[in-house]
Amino acid sequence: MDKIQRNERLSVIIKTLCDNPNKVFTLGYFSEMFGSAKSTISEDLDLLQKTFKKNSMGNICTIAGASGGVKYIPSVSEMDVRETLEELAKELSHPDRILSGGFLYMLDIIYNPKWVNKVAMIFATKFSGLGIDCVITVETKGIPIAFATAQYLNVPLVIVRHNNEATDGASVNINYASGSAKKIQTMVLPMKSLKRNSKILFIDDFMKAGGTSKGIIELANQFDSKVVGIGVMIETGLPVKKLVGNYHSLMKLNTSEMQENNSIDIKPNI
Amino acid sequence: MDKIQRNERLSVIIKTLCDNPNKVFTLGYFSEMFGSAKSTISEDLDLLQKTFKKNSMGNICTIAGASGGVKYIPSVSEMDVRETLEELAKELSHPDRILSGGFLYMLDIIYNPKWVNKVAMIFATKFSGLGIDCVITVETKGIPIAFATAQYLNVPLVIVRHNNEATDGASVNINYASGSAKKIQTMVLPMKSLKRNSKILFIDDFMKAGGTSKGIIELANQFDSKVVGIGVMIETGLPVKKLVGNYHSLMKLNTSEMQENNSIDIKPNI
Repeated sequence: MDKIQRNERLSVIIKTLCDNPNKVFTLGYFSEMFGSAKSTISEDLDLLQKTFKKNSMGNICTIAGASGGVKYIPSVSEMDVRETLEELAKELSHPDRILSGGFLYMLDIIYNPKWVNKVAMIFATKFSGLGIDCVITVETKGIPIAFATAQYLNVPLVIVRHNNEATDGASVNINYASGSAKKIQTMVLPMKSLKRNSKILFIDDFMKAGGTSKGIIELANQFDSKVVGIGVMIETGLPVKKLVGNYHSLMKLNTSEMQENNSIDIKPNI
Repeated sequence: MDKIQRNERLSVIIKTLCDNPNKVFTLGYFSEMFGSAKSTISEDLDLLQKTFKKNSMGNICTIAGASGGVKYIPSVSEMDVRETLEELAKELSHPDRILSGGFLYMLDIIYNPKWVNKVAMIFATKFSGLGIDCVITVETKGIPIAFATAQYLNVPLVIVRHNNEATDGASVNINYASGSAKKIQTMVLPMKSLKRNSKILFIDDFMKAGGTSKGIIELANQFDSKVVGIGVMIETGLPVKKLVGNYHSLMKLNTSEMQENNSIDIKPNI
């Protein structure tokens, strides 16, 4: 019987932890749930910790002390990152993806849970440990990736929009110059949606000149908040100098290649 | 040793299945991974099936035959649905949420992974088994809920926008009348983003008169596709008669109450 009980406990613990990444559960929570001693739960967690480590499934992290407990921190190994990005580059290099005007079609990737979760997991691994309070993005195309990243980091998502809506309440508007199109655009963020003194992670699908990132940094300032990380899935090779310095991009796209030779040159940043 | 091995196998299988809801894995996949006999994996799956059932963690479903395998189908019990919706109604009833103009502030709910996943899981449970090919939504506020629903159903997400973008390629535009504001709006969907003959699930955060749902049905027609389900988080009590008949809403909001008495009357649809 004991064997079955341990199996059952392990199953429930894994499911609970993995459904709630980065959320702390006390030992008491599980010991009450199963009617088991805390020392038994502790042994279970030891086992899980080893299994997760051995199989590169992320970390089961125990926190000592009275307010202690256990949480699951999702992470991917460098090898998995490399593999994912190489596979993604291959997928994005298909000639069918070139649209008239020399644009790259990628909606099927950035909206597909399969790819979105892989990309978001890479961002969560990269920016974990910065004490992020929320993930921010600008509508529309970056939303799924930003949402999935927020989910892995267990923080709220904040979406900046281009227009005000009545259902948002009082909002802060800023104008910013998109670095590539030299166009003035508006960013709107409802007052209620971002707490003062937040540490913010900005996630987006694409960066050309970095104008949007710069806008987000300025908008964050209006909320006495700070952008502590910027993650974009793809950056373009040109312009070489972006409007922001400290960002992390997963792939680099050579756009001139696409316009001149009708072929796609995209490479993982590894 | 055998005991540890079984624990380890179970842990890896659960993590793999739960990270990939509704995706079929063959027994051979796991038997190769562990170097175990298929009969051993089969026993493991039996154990998991029982544990998942007993603890209401969704279903581990085995598919017989040569192309058979196993998949995890997320689902919530009726009791959990009731509990979630009652908690959500309480959260949404807080007087602080009333904005000037008699609107209800809910961005913190519909962008927060904690709530989004609960709501999406309810939709996934409700619409599982309809053979959905993709989840569709209209930018912006419904995107996180629609994305999470797509993730649980293991299908792509499609986002309809209000404006065309160069990076989307050739697109289909339709005009539709928003049923409440009597305003003509535009919906745009890139040709590449939806396959012909798709079975579509439309997910949104809010329904007033149902004009957007009606627009989505018309847009789907342009792609020879069919909306087989509509799920909205909140519908308003008025107008009583919506522009579409067959939809599933989780909660009902009495908006006149908010405008007249400055109080929030929202109730779960259970």
